[in-house]
Amino acid sequence: MAGPATGLAESAISILTRAVELDTKAKYTESLVCYQEGIQLLLNVLKSETSQAKKEQYRTRINDYMSRAEKIKSLIEQQKETGKFHEQIQISKGARGFSYEHVFDRFLDQSLTEVTVEDPYIRSTHQIYNFLRFCELLVASSCKVTKISLLTGRDEQNYTQQDGRLREMAKSLVDYGINLVVEYSDSLHDREIRFNNGWIIKIGRGLDYFVNCGKFSIGYCNFNLRHCHETTIDIFHSKHLKVADGDNS
Amino acid sequence: MAGPATGLAESAISILTRAVELDTKAKYTESLVCYQEGIQLLLNVLKSETSQAKKEQYRTRINDYMSRAEKIKSLIEQQKETGKFHEQIQISKGARGFSYEHVFDRFLDQSLTEVTVEDPYIRSTHQIYNFLRFCELLVASSCKVTKISLLTGRDEQNYTQQDGRLREMAKSLVDYGINLVVEYSDSLHDREIRFNNGWIIKIGRGLDYFVNCGKFSIGYCNFNLRHCHETTIDIFHSKHLKVADGDNS
Repeated sequence: MAGPATGLAESAISILTRAVELDTKAKYTESLVCYQEGIQLLLNVLKSETSQAKKEQYRTRINDYMSRAEKIKSLIEQQKETGKFHEQIQISKGARGFSYEHVFDRFLDQSLTEVTVEDPYIRSTHQIYNFLRFCELLVASSCKVTKISLLTGRDEQNYTQQDGRLREMAKSLVDYGINLVVEYSDSLHDREIRFNNGWIIKIGRGLDYFVNCGKFSIGYCNFNLRHCHETTIDIFHSKHLKVADGDNS
Repeated sequence: MAGPATGLAESAISILTRAVELDTKAKYTESLVCYQEGIQLLLNVLKSETSQAKKEQYRTRINDYMSRAEKIKSLIEQQKETGKFHEQIQISKGARGFSYEHVFDRFLDQSLTEVTVEDPYIRSTHQIYNFLRFCELLVASSCKVTKISLLTGRDEQNYTQQDGRLREMAKSLVDYGINLVVEYSDSLHDREIRFNNGWIIKIGRGLDYFVNCGKFSIGYCNFNLRHCHETTIDIFHSKHLKVADGDNS
């Protein structure tokens, strides 16, 4: 008879299969997330399993996956060291499961203290909420961010409103020891998020890759349930993040 | 020198200390959540630790905590079996960290298929969003809920709006194979959420225990960062959930 653990075990297998797929394609950071989620699910299965033989099987598998996850972690480190890290995430049209937590969590480690967001479109209401959610993610994480810099375009129609909203956000971030610095630029083109632990994330559409949905429909509050527009996320790592553009020549 | 793992280890110790505290007070389900979060953090510490001696120390501690977590799980089972389960969570004024995920996740297992929400105040905009978030939690979980029943009071001033919003929600839940049934009652007094795996959760304020915050302030989107009103959550377990009130005499 299928017990409660069966469904959990199925979820674990499905996510670990995905981990192996991504691993094979050398999409290491994405693969690592899946391994970690899968291992967590298997640990839960282990807890509700009563057969000692099965428990032993699960323990062996968990150990195997943990070893592989550690191996991947060192592969990522190697690529970072040699400045060769480049990974791509393709979000297909209508896909779900790409909340900011899912996309960015893996880059938020204990060495992160400053984040720079360059995105020309943090202007309209839903775009400002995207940025608020991104800031909330930083606040809720265990990393100790003290500064967030936003460079965006000025909303010529509603500049007072845009600036007022960003000021409110800045004020509320002070309670968490975070200084939000907002600058406006008319000539901004690139969309780029830079973490001062070296990670650089470029999303084709910037933070604005979610499809609108009804205001009282599933997915309105939880972005993991929201459909996405098609877009590409490029992930780089630079050990020399603070070099200005002009110095690259 | 303090490495990145130090901060993580501190977070793990802090949450595991809380787990032991709650364990001592026999607040088992809440304690279990802390043990599980703490174990997960220690697993992350283990991964970034390089010293073999320390790795071994962490492994021993993880095993100890996992044994205790399993023991607690069986204590909860025993109390459920004997119909004696009662646990209380006190949310103090201004507390944070009580998102619906944090409060309800522990009750969402694979045997859950139906949820009943009795709450007289799912009426105004923010109350309907509370209920939407609660439904999103069920959708995002790995359990297979097929029916959500809501019994609430009618908003006499804005009934058309209230009903329209709940209908939109019901329509969007159909995509996830969930049937939302809404009924209105004028005589509703109790606030109670019943899961058909036996868990019954009574929150003094119903789902409406979050303090308002600025519309563009931290905590507006992420309820784990939102301050709470003072309230008490009572957790019961009944093996005979489907017995109607009148049959208890």
